[in-house]
Amino acid sequence: MRTYLECIPCFFKQALEAAKLSGADERTRKKILDEIALSIPKFPLASCPPEMARVIYGTVKRMTGKNDPYAKIKEKSNKLALSVYARLKKKVASSHDRLLTAIELAIAGNIIDYGVKNSLNVGEELNRILNKEDKAISKENSSIFNYRSFRRALKGAKSVLYLADNAGEVVFDRVLIEEIKMSDKDKNIIYAVKEEPVINDALREDALIAGIGEKAAIVSSGLDTPGTVLSLCSKEFLRIFRHADMVISKGQGNFEALSDCGRPVFFLFMAKCPVIARDVRCGLGDVVLLRKTTAKT
Amino acid sequence: MRTYLECIPCFFKQALEAAKLSGADERTRKKILDEIALSIPKFPLASCPPEMARVIYGTVKRMTGKNDPYAKIKEKSNKLALSVYARLKKKVASSHDRLLTAIELAIAGNIIDYGVKNSLNVGEELNRILNKEDKAISKENSSIFNYRSFRRALKGAKSVLYLADNAGEVVFDRVLIEEIKMSDKDKNIIYAVKEEPVINDALREDALIAGIGEKAAIVSSGLDTPGTVLSLCSKEFLRIFRHADMVISKGQGNFEALSDCGRPVFFLFMAKCPVIARDVRCGLGDVVLLRKTTAKT
Repeated sequence: MRTYLECIPCFFKQALEAAKLSGADERTRKKILDEIALSIPKFPLASCPPEMARVIYGTVKRMTGKNDPYAKIKEKSNKLALSVYARLKKKVASSHDRLLTAIELAIAGNIIDYGVKNSLNVGEELNRILNKEDKAISKENSSIFNYRSFRRALKGAKSVLYLADNAGEVVFDRVLIEEIKMSDKDKNIIYAVKEEPVINDALREDALIAGIGEKAAIVSSGLDTPGTVLSLCSKEFLRIFRHADMVISKGQGNFEALSDCGRPVFFLFMAKCPVIARDVRCGLGDVVLLRKTTAKT
Repeated sequence: MRTYLECIPCFFKQALEAAKLSGADERTRKKILDEIALSIPKFPLASCPPEMARVIYGTVKRMTGKNDPYAKIKEKSNKLALSVYARLKKKVASSHDRLLTAIELAIAGNIIDYGVKNSLNVGEELNRILNKEDKAISKENSSIFNYRSFRRALKGAKSVLYLADNAGEVVFDRVLIEEIKMSDKDKNIIYAVKEEPVINDALREDALIAGIGEKAAIVSSGLDTPGTVLSLCSKEFLRIFRHADMVISKGQGNFEALSDCGRPVFFLFMAKCPVIARDVRCGLGDVVLLRKTTAKT
């Protein structure tokens, strides 16, 4: 997805939030915003937002000396998600369509990102999702929820590349991965995390804490940007990306980076940003499972 | 009020909104944002937000050639407000404290600004205010609603300078001005409007359409900025500002520009921006009547 002009105010918001969290004083915060401001005219709108995010979080890191300001938030998210793991499993087990429920929960796990950014009470939100009746969050199949196509692709796939999004959310991913493995234990699942800390994106340690390592091979994309920007990925990761039978991509950042990548990808996310919702033609807050193949034009 | 770092993302939002309304294509919009971006490092936080707003709206005006993009919105607001004028008067007439009700309505009229910026249905919102029971919106006297002090100051004042905010809202101001004149027809009321179009701020023509001319002398502040920035006002206006027995200031923009001006001012506005709400220590959406005398430090 290209960058829209509405993303620009948001770049400054994000920079400010990260700077605050890094403990920067007001003088440093202003310097950070000034530096971001000077980079705006140089940033082409044809690039995707995570490329600018790299500039933003890189600037904050460099000017505050804090390498991982979201470390505590990530730790808390992991703990919170692990504490509901048994309930997630129960929800799947009692469902009339286990795969669908596991997908829905994996997408619901994406609110952890929302929680961080908008100070929502993530715990309450999770309870709300877990306690609701066993009724599909999504319509089982619609223009923004391509469930049938997902199920078909999954059936035929020997190798599945699963692109992680946030810490905490990784536990929800585990539930979906376990569901996939249960129906076919020989499926080769590769779970890709970021190489360097950026926002609350999942790193190898988060995937390990969540227990993903028992069901999938954890690899690094080589990235320090919140979204799989292919031009910045490691060669090793790119080889996997090109050759995997199926790619499952979690979160908005990965959608922004890969929506025009040319190979089929299943995007699972909650539409939390109005710009993305407009791009996808869905409502704000919608649960999205989108198969895209569009090549870059 | 100084500029806070949280104002910076909002500067870009405002620029984008004004550029859209001016019919700028995406290329021009980007150029406008780029120019605003380059001015950020040069803008001192000690200045008040309306000083930056002048840069923003000036840039949009220059780069689009549209002198008054909000003209239609202002016209619509005036019509809408005039259509409820009789009901406003009735509301005051049937109230147990006419002055208090007139003040509350004058502040409520400030939602017209809110409506423009957030696409709320102003008509519905006005109906809601007008239909509610005769119960004070505000607490009659509190730390953010200095009604007693206002009433006392008004009683002793021979001359009152009333600083207008937005088109449409001027009709609500008329109701308060008529109330003031009714209790003392010899009070000299001066109603100050902007000299040049900026956002939906009231100009002389808006005050005349609202019928303010019959009760007050309309003067121009000489400004093209959304807030009474004294260093930019005409000498004639400054003389009035210094010598008026009482100054009533409407809207957030005037608060931002005058909150540290050194002379006592009564600020009437709805706290629609979280930064201002924090500065005033009130809740978002609160109805504020604040007497301030703080000198610039």
